Amino acid sequence: MDIQHPYLLFLGDAKDQLAAKTAQGVAHWRPEWCVGQRRLEGCQADLGLTDMTLEEAWNAGAKTLVVGVANRGGVISDVWTDVLERALMQGFDLAAGLHNRLADVPSLAAIAAQHNRKLFDVRHPDRSFDVANGRKRSGKRLLTVGTDCSVGKMYTSLALERGMRDSGLKADLRATGQTGILIAGSGVSIDAVVADFISGAVESISPANEPDHWDLIEGQGSLFHASYAGVSLGLLHGAQADALVLCHEPTRHHMRGLPEYPLPELKVCMEANLTAARLTNPVARFVGISVNTSHMAAGEAEPYLRHLEKELGLPAVDAFKDGVAPIVARLG
Amino acid sequence: MDIQHPYLLFLGDAKDQLAAKTAQGVAHWRPEWCVGQRRLEGCQADLGLTDMTLEEAWNAGAKTLVVGVANRGGVISDVWTDVLERALMQGFDLAAGLHNRLADVPSLAAIAAQHNRKLFDVRHPDRSFDVANGRKRSGKRLLTVGTDCSVGKMYTSLALERGMRDSGLKADLRATGQTGILIAGSGVSIDAVVADFISGAVESISPANEPDHWDLIEGQGSLFHASYAGVSLGLLHGAQADALVLCHEPTRHHMRGLPEYPLPELKVCMEANLTAARLTNPVARFVGISVNTSHMAAGEAEPYLRHLEKELGLPAVDAFKDGVAPIVARLG
Repeated sequence: MDIQHPYLLFLGDAKDQLAAKTAQGVAHWRPEWCVGQRRLEGCQADLGLTDMTLEEAWNAGAKTLVVGVANRGGVISDVWTDVLERALMQGFDLAAGLHNRLADVPSLAAIAAQHNRKLFDVRHPDRSFDVANGRKRSGKRLLTVGTDCSVGKMYTSLALERGMRDSGLKADLRATGQTGILIAGSGVSIDAVVADFISGAVESISPANEPDHWDLIEGQGSLFHASYAGVSLGLLHGAQADALVLCHEPTRHHMRGLPEYPLPELKVCMEANLTAARLTNPVARFVGISVNTSHMAAGEAEPYLRHLEKELGLPAVDAFKDGVAPIVARLG
Repeated sequence: MDIQHPYLLFLGDAKDQLAAKTAQGVAHWRPEWCVGQRRLEGCQADLGLTDMTLEEAWNAGAKTLVVGVANRGGVISDVWTDVLERALMQGFDLAAGLHNRLADVPSLAAIAAQHNRKLFDVRHPDRSFDVANGRKRSGKRLLTVGTDCSVGKMYTSLALERGMRDSGLKADLRATGQTGILIAGSGVSIDAVVADFISGAVESISPANEPDHWDLIEGQGSLFHASYAGVSLGLLHGAQADALVLCHEPTRHHMRGLPEYPLPELKVCMEANLTAARLTNPVARFVGISVNTSHMAAGEAEPYLRHLEKELGLPAVDAFKDGVAPIVARLG
């Protein structure tokens, strides 16, 4: 997948801001790629971008209409389809992170074929992969891992990309989930790959590179998540990470979606990740902890982070509030 | 998948006995399901079953023609297709463990639809699965795990099934690979499942059962295989194994397909499997070691097994030469 930018962000008839969180992620991390937003009647989300018609966005240079909103009831409505059809006829490619495929909507498939436009269904891999070969690749790699799902792995990876680039380092996000793919313009939705090829797919999106170049590989799931740990382990082995960052959300009472499963201790989680990572990269090490403290009571976050730093001997940051400079300082 | 037996085993024009190893496995473990074999001109394999025409096998009660042979060059030849078409018209369902799908051969798909026959492409899951929920299920479960791929996990699982049944225990193979599926008549090719659903697929093929019933879940890969460990970990979590058996082939110089990767120490491999298994079943334990000693020099195997028993405190057997009675004795 190689999605052309600039983007026009399609928010549809989003029922609230949260429904457009994919578009919000793209606008936040790639403002220079986003020429405007396209909203339909009743849309309750707003990214603060210029509202544009398809034609205006096209004239402003946009190449791809990005569907950055969840579809109500999992259905691509006629109202949406109408806009998407017209976008294709205008000249846009389409990209979406929906469970449903744009390519499965007959009119969109037909118009795209007729006008030679591309449909990027980023949740669905559009190619097959080789089995991982485990051979060392040049260049450096950092992988974000987590105590659980949805604890800030993508956010942390992107904050590191920005921080490292600002420090003059060569760094590129390697996206493994739908929002990350739209932000990076490429990648693979790793949890949708056939099981045999998890590690192979990660090897393919993070090929050999210059010795001082960093791939920042977006982690998924957790080795301690009873539903998804296979994905996390395949990612860890394929990444051949030199550096790991542990992501954590300290107010969780249990693993996401699994009420009977407590979160792992941070030390235990780090040890398990390190042991597994060293199968394919014996010098893998942790370089920092990234904590989402947004649900902690005022005054609790700071002492908690300082406690972690002392206990684990690593910088501990809230990437959103404080940035990731202390972690970037450990990379080079 | 629920494949009807008895079977007629199709050996095609197998170039040697090895090419028919899938059929050989079925004939070895389910002789009572195999009414005969169907061989074409030039076939160099022989299972010692009665050679039969399609009509003879049909009259002898066979319900499914099982393609238990590798296809040369990965192509389903016209000669094969001709026999398979006639089998469908005779009344057979078809089952195959090929990489290519029978369902992708237009004439087979058409005739199957027209005559209401089933095509089982056992390498390819024919349904979707739920995400694993990690909840404890009644009944007992044993999983075979390995230091590497192809070290006897299926063979050991089947030897345990036979041994436990002979001892009056309730035991059923839960197959996770193509040959196992043809032997069990059901199962899922776990390495072909979408990554997010590895553990969920294992939960689905090993549902709640009577408290004294054992599922013998066929393991795949190894936690120490840099290409496939994600599959192995998802299997381990989905299995919620009470009992683990470690399978090993001591003459391997490196991990299968990965010349740069040595085999893990048995103790290290057991510890890693136990730690991971205990996420979903805190009382998981090893009950034995199953060693393929066929490539060891004469006189070496016996001392090696006794050494392992002393070192690891568990029965160590060559399941093929000695059977698995000492392991069965630990189950009940």
